[in-house]
Amino acid sequence: MDFPAWMAAMQQRSEETLDRLLPAATIAPQRLHQAMRYATLGAGKRVRPLLCHAAGALSKAEPQRLDNAAAALELIHVYSLVHDDLPCMDDDVLRRGKPTCHVEFDEATALLVGDALQSLAFQVLAEQPSGNNEHTAARQLEMLYLLAQAAGSRGMAGGQAIDLAAVDQQLSLAELEFMHIHKTGALIRAAVLLGATCGKPLTDEARRHLDHYAKIIGLLFQVIDDILDSEADTATLGKTAGKDAAHNKPTYVSLLGLSQAKAKAAELRGEAHAALSSFGDAARRLTELTDYICDRRF
Amino acid sequence: MDFPAWMAAMQQRSEETLDRLLPAATIAPQRLHQAMRYATLGAGKRVRPLLCHAAGALSKAEPQRLDNAAAALELIHVYSLVHDDLPCMDDDVLRRGKPTCHVEFDEATALLVGDALQSLAFQVLAEQPSGNNEHTAARQLEMLYLLAQAAGSRGMAGGQAIDLAAVDQQLSLAELEFMHIHKTGALIRAAVLLGATCGKPLTDEARRHLDHYAKIIGLLFQVIDDILDSEADTATLGKTAGKDAAHNKPTYVSLLGLSQAKAKAAELRGEAHAALSSFGDAARRLTELTDYICDRRF
Repeated sequence: MDFPAWMAAMQQRSEETLDRLLPAATIAPQRLHQAMRYATLGAGKRVRPLLCHAAGALSKAEPQRLDNAAAALELIHVYSLVHDDLPCMDDDVLRRGKPTCHVEFDEATALLVGDALQSLAFQVLAEQPSGNNEHTAARQLEMLYLLAQAAGSRGMAGGQAIDLAAVDQQLSLAELEFMHIHKTGALIRAAVLLGATCGKPLTDEARRHLDHYAKIIGLLFQVIDDILDSEADTATLGKTAGKDAAHNKPTYVSLLGLSQAKAKAAELRGEAHAALSSFGDAARRLTELTDYICDRRF
Repeated sequence: MDFPAWMAAMQQRSEETLDRLLPAATIAPQRLHQAMRYATLGAGKRVRPLLCHAAGALSKAEPQRLDNAAAALELIHVYSLVHDDLPCMDDDVLRRGKPTCHVEFDEATALLVGDALQSLAFQVLAEQPSGNNEHTAARQLEMLYLLAQAAGSRGMAGGQAIDLAAVDQQLSLAELEFMHIHKTGALIRAAVLLGATCGKPLTDEARRHLDHYAKIIGLLFQVIDDILDSEADTATLGKTAGKDAAHNKPTYVSLLGLSQAKAKAAELRGEAHAALSSFGDAARRLTELTDYICDRRF
Protein backbone atom coordinates (compact mmCIF):
# COMPACT_ATOMS: atom_id res chain seq x y z
CA MET A 1 0.00 0.00 0.00
CA ASP A 2 1.44 3.40 -0.87
CA PHE A 3 1.55 6.15 1.74
CA PRO A 4 -1.50 8.16 0.63
CA ALA A 5 -3.60 4.99 0.63
CA TRP A 6 -2.29 3.98 4.07
CA MET A 7 -2.97 7.45 5.42
CA ALA A 8 -6.50 7.51 4.02
CA ALA A 9 -7.16 4.05 5.48
CA MET A 10 -5.89 5.07 8.94
CA GLN A 11 -7.86 8.32 8.89
CA GLN A 12 -10.97 6.38 7.97
CA ARG A 13 -10.24 3.89 10.75
CA SER A 14 -9.82 6.73 13.29
CA GLU A 15 -13.06 8.34 12.16
CA GLU A 16 -14.94 5.08 12.60
CA THR A 17 -13.42 4.45 16.02
CA LEU A 18 -14.28 7.96 17.23
CA ASP A 19 -17.79 7.63 15.85
CA ARG A 20 -18.21 4.35 17.74
CA LEU A 21 -16.75 5.67 21.02
CA LEU A 22 -18.62 8.98 21.17
CA PRO A 23 -22.10 8.66 22.72
CA ALA A 24 -24.89 8.90 20.15
CA ALA A 25 -26.55 12.29 19.75
CA THR A 26 -29.83 10.64 20.76
CA ILE A 27 -28.53 9.81 24.28
CA ALA A 28 -29.21 12.38 27.06
CA PRO A 29 -27.87 15.01 27.44
CA GLN A 30 -28.49 15.20 23.69
CA ARG A 31 -27.20 18.71 23.05
CA LEU A 32 -23.89 17.96 24.77
CA HIS A 33 -23.42 14.73 22.83
CA GLN A 34 -24.37 16.46 19.60
CA ALA A 35 -21.74 19.16 20.32
CA MET A 36 -19.08 16.57 21.22
CA ARG A 37 -19.67 14.85 17.90
CA TYR A 38 -19.73 18.17 16.03
CA ALA A 39 -16.31 19.12 17.45
CA THR A 40 -14.72 15.72 16.87
CA LEU A 41 -16.06 14.10 13.72
CA GLY A 42 -15.82 14.80 10.02
CA ALA A 43 -12.65 16.84 9.83
CA GLY A 44 -9.12 17.05 11.10
CA LYS A 45 -5.91 15.58 9.73
CA ARG A 46 -5.76 13.05 12.60
CA VAL A 47 -2.00 13.58 12.89
CA ARG A 48 -1.81 12.07 16.39
CA PRO A 49 -3.73 8.90 15.47
CA LEU A 50 -1.52 8.58 12.37
CA LEU A 51 1.64 8.89 14.48
CA CYS A 52 0.25 6.35 16.93
CA HIS A 53 -0.50 3.80 14.21
CA ALA A 54 2.82 4.43 12.45
CA ALA A 55 4.76 4.02 15.72
CA GLY A 56 2.79 0.88 16.48
CA ALA A 57 4.51 -0.80 13.53
CA LEU A 58 7.84 -0.52 15.40
CA SER A 59 6.58 -2.86 18.12
CA LYS A 60 4.39 -4.97 15.83
CA ALA A 61 1.27 -3.78 17.66
CA GLU A 62 -2.05 -5.11 16.39
CA PRO A 63 -4.08 -2.38 14.68
CA GLN A 64 -7.08 -3.22 16.90
CA ARG A 65 -5.05 -2.47 20.02
CA LEU A 66 -3.92 0.84 18.52
CA ASP A 67 -7.42 2.05 17.76
CA ASN A 68 -8.35 3.06 21.31
CA ALA A 69 -4.98 4.69 21.98
CA ALA A 70 -5.24 6.66 18.73
CA ALA A 71 -8.78 7.74 19.59
CA ALA A 72 -7.80 8.79 23.12
CA LEU A 73 -5.03 10.99 21.71
CA GLU A 74 -7.38 12.63 19.23
CA LEU A 75 -10.02 13.22 21.94
CA ILE A 76 -7.45 15.06 24.08
CA HIS A 77 -6.39 17.07 21.04
CA VAL A 78 -9.96 18.03 20.12
CA TYR A 79 -10.79 19.00 23.72
CA SER A 80 -7.77 21.33 23.70
CA LEU A 81 -8.89 22.94 20.43
CA VAL A 82 -12.41 23.52 21.74
CA HIS A 83 -11.14 25.18 24.93
CA ASP A 84 -8.40 27.06 23.09
CA ASP A 85 -10.97 28.63 20.78
CA LEU A 86 -13.10 29.99 23.66
CA PRO A 87 -13.42 33.79 24.02
CA CYS A 88 -11.30 33.85 27.20
CA MET A 89 -8.49 32.09 25.30
CA ASP A 90 -7.85 32.66 21.57
CA ASP A 91 -11.43 33.74 20.84
CA ASP A 92 -11.55 32.09 17.45
CA VAL A 93 -14.57 31.55 15.23
CA LEU A 94 -13.29 29.08 12.63
CA ARG A 95 -11.84 25.60 13.11
CA ARG A 96 -11.39 22.77 10.64
CA GLY A 97 -13.38 24.81 8.14
CA LYS A 98 -16.45 25.09 10.40
CA PRO A 99 -17.68 27.56 13.04
CA THR A 100 -15.97 26.79 16.35
CA CYS A 101 -17.93 24.84 18.95
CA HIS A 102 -18.91 27.82 21.11
CA VAL A 103 -20.07 29.72 18.00
CA GLU A 104 -22.16 26.81 16.73
CA PHE A 105 -23.52 25.97 20.21
CA ASP A 106 -22.68 28.28 23.14
CA GLU A 107 -19.79 28.94 25.52
CA ALA A 108 -21.02 26.83 28.40
CA THR A 109 -21.65 23.87 26.11
CA ALA A 110 -18.19 24.24 24.54
CA LEU A 111 -16.62 24.28 28.00
CA LEU A 112 -18.44 21.05 28.91
CA VAL A 113 -17.62 19.49 25.52
CA GLY A 114 -13.90 19.93 26.24
CA ASP A 115 -14.28 18.63 29.79
CA ALA A 116 -16.25 15.58 28.70
CA LEU A 117 -13.93 14.79 25.77
CA GLN A 118 -11.00 14.73 28.19
CA SER A 119 -12.84 12.29 30.49
CA LEU A 120 -13.79 10.16 27.50
CA ALA A 121 -10.14 9.95 26.40
CA PHE A 122 -9.15 8.35 29.69
CA GLN A 123 -12.23 6.15 29.76
CA VAL A 124 -11.38 4.81 26.32
CA LEU A 125 -7.79 4.10 27.31
CA ALA A 126 -8.87 2.38 30.55
CA GLU A 127 -11.19 -0.03 28.75
CA GLN A 128 -10.07 -3.59 29.37
CA PRO A 129 -10.17 -5.62 26.17
CA SER A 130 -11.51 -9.13 26.51
CA GLY A 131 -8.63 -11.52 27.01
CA ASN A 132 -6.64 -8.81 28.75
CA ASN A 133 -3.85 -10.27 30.84
CA GLU A 134 -1.74 -9.03 33.71
CA HIS A 135 1.04 -7.89 31.45
CA THR A 136 -1.18 -5.79 29.23
CA ALA A 137 -2.96 -4.23 32.24
CA ALA A 138 0.36 -2.85 33.52
CA ARG A 139 1.19 -1.57 30.01
CA GLN A 140 -2.21 0.09 29.81
CA LEU A 141 -1.59 1.86 33.11
CA GLU A 142 1.73 3.05 31.71
CA MET A 143 -0.09 4.48 28.69
CA LEU A 144 -2.69 6.19 30.86
CA TYR A 145 0.03 7.75 32.96
CA LEU A 146 1.89 8.96 29.85
CA LEU A 147 -1.23 10.49 28.34
CA ALA A 148 -2.31 12.20 31.57
CA GLN A 149 1.14 13.66 32.05
CA ALA A 150 1.27 14.87 28.44
CA ALA A 151 -2.13 16.55 28.77
CA GLY A 152 -1.56 18.18 32.16
CA SER A 153 0.08 21.23 33.67
CA ARG A 154 3.57 20.04 32.83
CA GLY A 155 2.47 19.15 29.31
CA MET A 156 -0.17 20.56 26.98
CA ALA A 157 -2.24 22.60 29.49
CA GLY A 158 0.98 24.06 30.89
CA GLY A 159 2.04 24.99 27.36
CA GLN A 160 -1.22 26.88 26.89
CA ALA A 161 -0.54 28.80 30.09
CA ILE A 162 2.96 29.73 28.88
CA ASP A 163 1.48 30.71 25.52
CA LEU A 164 -1.04 33.05 27.20
CA ALA A 165 1.69 34.68 29.23
CA ALA A 166 3.76 35.17 26.06
CA VAL A 167 1.31 37.51 24.32
CA ASP A 168 3.04 40.84 23.72
CA GLN A 169 6.27 39.43 25.18
CA GLN A 170 9.62 39.20 23.44
CA LEU A 171 10.67 35.56 23.86
CA SER A 172 14.08 34.07 23.24
CA LEU A 173 14.31 31.03 20.95
CA ALA A 174 14.88 28.86 24.03
CA GLU A 175 11.71 30.21 25.67
CA LEU A 176 9.72 29.68 22.48
CA GLU A 177 10.93 26.07 22.30
CA PHE A 178 10.09 25.52 25.97
CA MET A 179 6.55 26.69 25.22
CA HIS A 180 6.11 24.46 22.18
CA ILE A 181 7.67 21.41 23.79
CA HIS A 182 4.76 21.67 26.22
CA LYS A 183 1.91 23.04 24.12
CA THR A 184 2.17 20.84 21.03
CA GLY A 185 5.19 18.65 21.65
CA ALA A 186 4.00 16.76 24.71
CA LEU A 187 0.91 15.25 23.04
CA ILE A 188 2.73 14.52 19.77
CA ARG A 189 5.44 12.75 21.75
CA ALA A 190 2.76 10.81 23.66
CA ALA A 191 1.22 9.75 20.33
CA VAL A 192 4.50 8.14 19.25
CA LEU A 193 5.20 6.53 22.63
CA LEU A 194 1.66 5.22 23.10
CA GLY A 195 1.72 3.60 19.68
CA ALA A 196 5.01 1.85 20.42
CA THR A 197 3.74 0.74 23.87
CA CYS A 198 0.80 -1.13 22.31
CA GLY A 199 3.00 -3.91 20.93
CA LYS A 200 6.02 -5.94 22.02
CA PRO A 201 8.42 -4.22 24.43
CA LEU A 202 11.26 -2.29 22.74
CA THR A 203 14.87 -2.51 23.87
CA ASP A 204 16.14 0.37 25.99
CA GLU A 205 18.21 1.61 23.07
CA ALA A 206 15.27 1.50 20.68
CA ARG A 207 13.18 3.39 23.22
CA ARG A 208 15.83 6.10 23.46
CA HIS A 209 15.93 6.53 19.67
CA LEU A 210 12.17 6.61 19.52
CA ASP A 211 11.85 9.15 22.32
CA HIS A 212 14.39 11.35 20.57
CA TYR A 213 12.34 11.13 17.38
CA ALA A 214 9.14 11.80 19.33
CA LYS A 215 10.51 15.03 20.78
CA ILE A 216 11.82 16.25 17.43
CA ILE A 217 8.66 15.56 15.48
CA GLY A 218 6.69 17.62 18.02
CA LEU A 219 8.93 20.62 17.51
CA LEU A 220 9.06 20.12 13.75
CA PHE A 221 5.28 20.01 13.60
CA GLN A 222 5.11 23.40 15.32
CA VAL A 223 7.79 25.05 13.16
CA ILE A 224 5.86 23.97 10.06
CA ASP A 225 2.62 25.20 11.64
CA ASP A 226 4.15 28.63 12.20
CA ILE A 227 5.43 28.75 8.61
CA LEU A 228 2.00 27.77 7.26
CA ASP A 229 0.25 30.28 9.51
CA SER A 230 2.41 33.06 8.11
CA GLU A 231 2.10 31.98 4.47
CA ALA A 232 -1.28 30.38 3.93
CA ASP A 233 -4.69 31.95 3.62
CA THR A 234 -7.67 31.13 5.82
CA ALA A 235 -9.53 29.15 3.15
CA THR A 236 -6.65 26.71 2.60
CA LEU A 237 -5.87 26.39 6.29
CA GLY A 238 -9.45 25.80 7.47
CA LYS A 239 -8.70 27.95 10.49
CA THR A 240 -8.01 31.64 10.87
CA ALA A 241 -4.66 32.39 9.20
CA GLY A 242 -2.16 34.94 10.45
CA LYS A 243 -3.72 34.93 13.90
CA ASP A 244 -0.44 34.58 15.75
CA ALA A 245 0.79 37.83 14.25
CA ALA A 246 -2.60 39.45 14.88
CA HIS A 247 -2.44 38.37 18.55
CA ASN A 248 1.15 39.54 18.69
CA LYS A 249 2.29 36.05 19.63
CA PRO A 250 5.91 35.06 19.11
CA THR A 251 6.42 32.32 16.48
CA TYR A 252 9.41 30.70 14.84
CA VAL A 253 8.78 32.94 11.86
CA SER A 254 8.54 36.16 13.89
CA LEU A 255 11.65 35.22 15.83
CA LEU A 256 13.86 33.72 13.11
CA GLY A 257 12.39 35.14 9.91
CA LEU A 258 10.79 32.92 7.26
CA SER A 259 13.94 31.59 5.60
CA GLN A 260 15.65 30.75 8.89
CA ALA A 261 12.47 29.05 10.11
CA LYS A 262 12.51 26.94 6.93
CA ALA A 263 16.16 26.09 7.50
CA LYS A 264 15.31 25.04 11.06
CA ALA A 265 12.54 22.77 9.72
CA ALA A 266 14.95 21.15 7.26
CA GLU A 267 17.47 20.56 10.02
CA LEU A 268 14.89 18.95 12.34
CA ARG A 269 13.64 16.82 9.46
CA GLY A 270 17.13 15.44 8.96
CA GLU A 271 17.45 14.72 12.66
CA ALA A 272 14.08 12.95 12.70
CA HIS A 273 15.10 10.71 9.79
CA ALA A 274 18.38 9.91 11.52
CA ALA A 275 16.62 8.95 14.76
CA LEU A 276 14.48 6.45 12.82
CA SER A 277 17.29 4.93 10.75
CA SER A 278 18.13 2.11 13.18
CA PHE A 279 14.58 0.72 12.94
CA GLY A 280 14.97 -0.17 9.24
CA ASP A 281 11.82 -0.99 7.30
CA ALA A 282 9.62 -1.08 10.44
CA ALA A 283 9.88 2.72 10.52
CA ARG A 284 8.69 3.16 6.96
CA ARG A 285 5.33 4.71 7.85
CA LEU A 286 6.86 6.99 10.48
CA THR A 287 9.43 8.20 7.97
CA GLU A 288 6.79 8.83 5.33
CA LEU A 289 4.61 10.58 7.89
CA THR A 290 7.52 12.82 8.89
CA ASP A 291 7.87 13.89 5.26
CA TYR A 292 4.14 14.41 4.95
CA ILE A 293 4.17 16.68 8.03
CA CYS A 294 6.99 18.71 6.49
CA ASP A 295 5.49 18.98 3.02
CA ARG A 296 1.84 19.57 3.93
CA ARG A 297 0.22 22.77 2.71
CA PHE A 298 -2.46 23.03 5.42
CA MET B 1 -11.06 7.02 67.67
CA ASP B 2 -14.38 8.87 67.67
CA PHE B 3 -15.90 10.12 64.42
CA PRO B 4 -14.84 13.80 64.62
CA ALA B 5 -11.23 12.73 65.31
CA TRP B 6 -11.32 10.20 62.45
CA MET B 7 -12.77 12.81 60.11
CA ALA B 8 -10.17 15.41 61.07
CA ALA B 9 -7.39 12.84 60.58
CA MET B 10 -8.68 11.85 57.14
CA GLN B 11 -9.12 15.48 56.07
CA GLN B 12 -5.57 16.19 57.18
CA ARG B 13 -4.37 13.14 55.29
CA SER B 14 -6.17 14.26 52.12
CA GLU B 15 -4.72 17.74 52.42
CA GLU B 16 -1.20 16.35 52.74
CA THR B 17 -1.68 13.99 49.80
CA LEU B 18 -3.03 16.77 47.57
CA ASP B 19 -0.21 19.07 48.63
CA ARG B 20 2.30 16.36 47.70
CA LEU B 21 0.67 15.52 44.36
CA LEU B 22 0.15 19.08 43.09
CA PRO B 23 3.23 20.52 41.37
CA ALA B 24 5.02 23.12 43.50
CA ALA B 25 4.22 26.77 42.76
CA THR B 26 7.92 27.24 41.93
CA ILE B 27 7.74 24.85 38.94
CA ALA B 28 6.97 26.38 35.51
CA PRO B 29 4.37 27.42 34.55
CA GLN B 30 4.37 28.98 38.00
CA ARG B 31 1.16 30.98 37.76
CA LEU B 32 -0.83 27.94 36.64
CA HIS B 33 0.58 25.80 39.44
CA GLN B 34 -0.06 28.57 41.94
CA ALA B 35 -3.68 28.77 40.77
CA MET B 36 -4.12 24.97 40.88
CA ARG B 37 -2.93 24.99 44.50
CA TYR B 38 -5.10 28.01 45.32
CA ALA B 39 -8.21 26.24 44.05
CA THR B 40 -7.46 22.90 45.71
CA LEU B 41 -5.70 23.40 49.05
CA GLY B 42 -6.69 24.82 52.42
CA ALA B 43 -10.44 24.45 52.32
CA GLY B 44 -13.22 22.09 51.38
CA LYS B 45 -14.99 19.44 53.41
CA ARG B 46 -13.30 16.66 51.41
CA VAL B 47 -16.54 14.68 51.36
CA ARG B 48 -15.44 12.49 48.45
CA PRO B 49 -12.08 11.55 50.03
CA LEU B 50 -13.93 10.82 53.30
CA LEU B 51 -16.40 8.55 51.50
CA CYS B 52 -13.51 6.83 49.73
CA HIS B 53 -11.64 6.14 52.97
CA ALA B 54 -14.81 5.08 54.80
CA ALA B 55 -15.78 2.69 51.99
CA GLY B 56 -12.21 1.34 51.96
CA ALA B 57 -12.86 -0.13 55.41
CA LEU B 58 -15.47 -2.45 53.87
CA SER B 59 -12.79 -4.20 51.82
CA LYS B 60 -10.00 -3.81 54.37
CA ALA B 61 -8.08 -1.53 51.99
CA GLU B 62 -4.79 -0.13 53.25
CA PRO B 63 -5.01 3.62 53.92
CA GLN B 64 -1.93 4.21 51.74
CA ARG B 65 -3.70 2.65 48.74
CA LEU B 66 -6.73 4.82 49.37
CA ASP B 67 -4.79 8.08 49.40
CA ASN B 68 -4.33 8.37 45.64
CA ALA B 69 -7.90 7.35 44.88
CA ALA B 70 -9.20 9.89 47.40
CA ALA B 71 -7.01 12.61 45.93
CA ALA B 72 -8.06 11.79 42.36
CA LEU B 73 -11.72 12.13 43.36
CA GLU B 74 -11.12 15.48 45.04
CA LEU B 75 -9.14 16.77 42.03
CA ILE B 76 -12.07 15.96 39.74
CA HIS B 77 -14.44 17.66 42.18
CA VAL B 78 -12.29 20.80 42.43
CA TYR B 79 -11.89 21.02 38.64
CA SER B 80 -15.67 20.90 38.29
CA LEU B 81 -16.10 23.70 40.86
CA VAL B 82 -13.55 25.92 39.10
CA HIS B 83 -15.25 25.47 35.72
CA ASP B 84 -18.74 25.72 37.22
CA ASP B 85 -17.88 29.12 38.74
CA LEU B 86 -16.77 30.61 35.39
CA PRO B 87 -18.76 33.51 33.94
CA CYS B 88 -20.17 31.38 31.10
CA MET B 89 -21.51 28.89 33.68
CA ASP B 90 -22.73 29.97 37.15
CA ASP B 91 -20.64 33.16 37.18
CA ASP B 92 -19.86 32.95 40.88
CA VAL B 93 -17.37 35.03 42.85
CA LEU B 94 -17.13 33.15 46.16
CA ARG B 95 -16.11 29.54 46.82
CA ARG B 96 -14.97 27.87 50.01
CA GLY B 97 -14.87 31.30 51.64
CA LYS B 98 -12.42 32.74 49.09
CA PRO B 99 -12.72 34.58 45.76
CA THR B 100 -13.27 32.03 42.98
CA CYS B 101 -10.28 31.05 40.85
CA HIS B 102 -11.11 33.24 37.84
CA VAL B 103 -11.66 36.23 40.17
CA GLU B 104 -8.36 35.71 42.00
CA PHE B 105 -6.46 34.92 38.77
CA ASP B 106 -8.22 35.30 35.42
CA GLU B 107 -10.66 33.37 33.25
CA ALA B 108 -8.12 31.75 30.96
CA THR B 109 -6.06 30.57 33.93
CA ALA B 110 -9.16 29.18 35.66
CA LEU B 111 -10.09 27.30 32.49
CA LEU B 112 -6.60 25.74 32.36
CA VAL B 113 -6.64 25.04 36.10
CA GLY B 114 -9.74 22.90 35.66
CA ASP B 115 -8.31 21.18 32.60
CA ALA B 116 -5.00 20.41 34.30
CA LEU B 117 -6.64 19.22 37.54
CA GLN B 118 -8.67 16.73 35.54
CA SER B 119 -5.52 15.39 33.85
CA LEU B 120 -3.77 15.22 37.21
CA ALA B 121 -6.61 13.16 38.69
CA PHE B 122 -6.11 10.44 36.08
CA GLN B 123 -2.33 10.67 36.32
CA VAL B 124 -2.51 10.11 40.08
CA LEU B 125 -4.81 7.13 39.70
CA ALA B 126 -2.60 5.60 36.96
CA GLU B 127 0.53 5.73 39.13
CA GLN B 128 1.87 2.22 39.65
CA PRO B 129 2.88 1.65 43.27
CA SER B 130 6.09 -0.27 43.80
CA GLY B 131 5.29 -3.93 44.25
CA ASN B 132 2.26 -3.59 42.04
CA ASN B 133 1.15 -6.92 40.66
CA GLU B 134 -0.99 -8.05 37.80
CA HIS B 135 -4.09 -8.30 39.91
CA THR B 136 -3.81 -4.78 41.27
CA ALA B 137 -3.06 -3.37 37.81
CA ALA B 138 -6.36 -4.73 36.52
CA ARG B 139 -8.16 -3.30 39.57
CA GLN B 140 -6.51 0.05 38.97
CA LEU B 141 -7.76 0.06 35.38
CA GLU B 142 -11.23 -0.69 36.71
CA MET B 143 -10.98 2.34 39.02
CA LEU B 144 -9.75 4.57 36.21
CA TYR B 145 -12.65 3.48 34.05
CA LEU B 146 -15.14 4.13 36.86
CA LEU B 147 -13.77 7.60 37.55
CA ALA B 148 -13.64 8.60 33.88
CA GLN B 149 -17.19 7.45 33.36
CA ALA B 150 -18.39 9.28 36.48
CA ALA B 151 -16.70 12.51 35.36
CA GLY B 152 -17.80 12.43 31.72
CA SER B 153 -20.80 13.27 29.58
CA ARG B 154 -22.92 10.49 31.06
CA GLY B 155 -21.86 11.50 34.56
CA MET B 156 -20.86 14.81 36.13
CA ALA B 157 -20.23 16.88 32.96
CA GLY B 158 -23.51 15.61 31.53
CA GLY B 159 -25.25 16.65 34.75
CA GLN B 160 -23.89 20.16 34.34
CA ALA B 161 -25.27 20.27 30.82
CA ILE B 162 -28.71 19.17 32.05
CA ASP B 163 -28.49 21.74 34.85
CA LEU B 164 -27.77 24.53 32.35
CA ALA B 165 -30.70 23.51 30.21
CA ALA B 166 -32.94 23.51 33.31
CA VAL B 167 -32.61 27.24 34.05
CA ASP B 168 -36.08 28.80 33.87
CA GLN B 169 -37.59 25.38 33.19
CA GLN B 170 -40.25 23.65 35.22
CA LEU B 171 -38.85 20.20 35.98
CA SER B 172 -40.66 17.21 37.33
CA LEU B 173 -39.22 15.45 40.38
CA ALA B 174 -38.05 12.64 38.09
CA GLU B 175 -36.21 15.11 35.84
CA LEU B 176 -34.62 16.82 38.85
CA GLU B 177 -33.39 13.46 40.14
CA PHE B 178 -32.06 12.53 36.72
CA MET B 179 -30.04 15.77 36.75
CA HIS B 180 -28.63 15.22 40.24
CA ILE B 181 -27.85 11.55 39.71
CA HIS B 182 -25.49 12.84 37.02
CA LYS B 183 -24.28 16.18 38.35
CA THR B 184 -23.43 15.25 41.95
CA GLY B 185 -24.43 11.62 42.29
CA ALA B 186 -22.04 10.08 39.77
CA LEU B 187 -18.86 11.29 41.47
CA ILE B 188 -20.17 10.57 44.99
CA ARG B 189 -21.02 7.06 43.86
CA ALA B 190 -17.56 6.71 42.31
CA ALA B 191 -16.01 7.78 45.64
CA VAL B 192 -17.72 4.91 47.44
CA LEU B 193 -16.97 2.33 44.73
CA LEU B 194 -13.33 3.39 44.30
CA GLY B 195 -12.73 3.11 48.03
CA ALA B 196 -14.18 -0.38 48.14
CA THR B 197 -12.18 -1.42 45.04
CA CYS B 198 -8.87 -0.59 46.76
CA GLY B 199 -9.04 -3.60 49.07
CA LYS B 200 -10.09 -7.24 48.89
CA PRO B 201 -12.80 -8.11 46.35
CA LEU B 202 -16.36 -7.92 47.70
CA THR B 203 -18.95 -10.60 47.04
CA ASP B 204 -21.48 -9.81 44.34
CA GLU B 205 -24.16 -9.37 46.97
CA ALA B 206 -22.01 -6.97 49.01
CA ARG B 207 -21.29 -4.99 45.84
CA ARG B 208 -25.00 -4.69 45.12
CA HIS B 209 -25.71 -3.37 48.62
CA LEU B 210 -22.81 -0.95 48.38
CA ASP B 211 -23.83 0.32 44.96
CA HIS B 212 -27.34 0.91 46.26
CA TYR B 213 -25.90 2.88 49.18
CA ALA B 214 -23.61 4.80 46.80
CA LYS B 215 -26.52 5.92 44.65
CA ILE B 216 -28.61 6.97 47.64
CA ILE B 217 -25.88 8.94 49.39
CA GLY B 218 -25.33 10.98 46.19
CA LEU B 219 -28.97 11.97 46.05
CA LEU B 220 -29.13 12.57 49.80
CA PHE B 221 -26.11 14.84 49.60
CA GLN B 222 -27.88 16.98 46.99
CA VAL B 223 -31.19 17.19 48.85
CA ILE B 224 -29.31 18.43 51.93
CA ASP B 225 -27.36 20.88 49.76
CA ASP B 226 -30.60 22.32 48.41
CA ILE B 227 -32.03 22.65 51.92
CA LEU B 228 -28.86 24.38 53.15
CA ASP B 229 -28.79 26.68 50.13
CA SER B 230 -32.33 27.82 50.88
CA GLU B 231 -31.77 28.24 54.64
CA ALA B 232 -28.18 29.25 55.28
CA ASP B 233 -26.51 32.60 54.78
CA THR B 234 -23.45 33.16 52.61
CA ALA B 235 -21.01 33.57 55.52
CA THR B 236 -21.85 30.15 57.02
CA LEU B 237 -21.93 28.41 53.65
CA GLY B 238 -18.61 29.81 52.35
CA LYS B 239 -20.25 30.11 48.93
CA THR B 240 -23.00 32.31 47.60
CA ALA B 241 -26.25 31.30 49.33
CA GLY B 242 -29.65 31.30 47.66
CA LYS B 243 -28.09 31.28 44.22
CA ASP B 244 -30.26 28.49 42.88
CA ALA B 245 -33.36 30.59 43.53
CA ALA B 246 -31.63 33.68 42.12
CA HIS B 247 -30.72 31.76 38.94
CA ASN B 248 -34.24 30.38 38.85
CA LYS B 249 -32.92 26.84 39.05
CA PRO B 250 -35.21 24.07 40.18
CA THR B 251 -34.21 22.46 43.51
CA TYR B 252 -35.76 19.90 45.82
CA VAL B 253 -36.90 22.81 47.97
CA SER B 254 -38.47 24.76 45.11
CA LEU B 255 -40.16 21.63 43.85
CA LEU B 256 -41.26 19.95 47.08
CA GLY B 257 -41.27 22.80 49.57
CA LEU B 258 -38.93 22.87 52.57
CA SER B 259 -40.75 20.43 54.83
CA GLN B 260 -41.27 17.83 52.08
CA ALA B 261 -37.61 18.17 51.11
CA LYS B 262 -36.67 17.44 54.72
CA ALA B 263 -38.97 14.44 54.78
CA LYS B 264 -37.33 13.18 51.59
CA ALA B 265 -33.89 13.56 53.22
CA ALA B 266 -35.04 11.58 56.27
CA GLU B 267 -36.40 8.83 54.05
CA LEU B 268 -33.17 8.56 52.04
CA ARG B 269 -31.16 8.53 55.27
CA GLY B 270 -33.12 5.53 56.48
CA GLU B 271 -32.58 3.76 53.16
CA ALA B 272 -28.84 4.49 53.29
CA HIS B 273 -28.57 3.01 56.78
CA ALA B 274 -30.49 -0.06 55.68
CA ALA B 275 -28.20 -0.60 52.70
CA LEU B 276 -25.18 -0.62 55.02
CA SER B 277 -26.66 -2.86 57.70
CA SER B 278 -25.38 -6.14 56.28
CA PHE B 279 -21.77 -4.94 56.54
CA GLY B 280 -21.90 -4.79 60.36
CA ASP B 281 -19.10 -2.95 62.13
CA ALA B 282 -17.00 -2.57 58.94
CA ALA B 283 -19.52 0.08 57.81
CA ARG B 284 -19.18 2.11 61.01
CA ARG B 285 -17.42 5.06 59.38
CA LEU B 286 -19.74 5.08 56.38
CA THR B 287 -22.74 5.11 58.70
CA GLU B 288 -21.30 7.93 60.78
CA LEU B 289 -20.41 9.83 57.63
CA THR B 290 -23.95 9.44 56.32
CA ASP B 291 -25.23 11.04 59.53
CA TYR B 292 -22.64 13.79 59.30
CA ILE B 293 -23.74 14.59 55.73
CA CYS B 294 -27.35 14.82 56.92
CA ASP B 295 -26.67 16.91 60.01
CA ARG B 296 -24.07 19.34 58.60
CA ARG B 297 -24.85 23.02 58.69
CA PHE B 298 -22.61 24.08 55.77
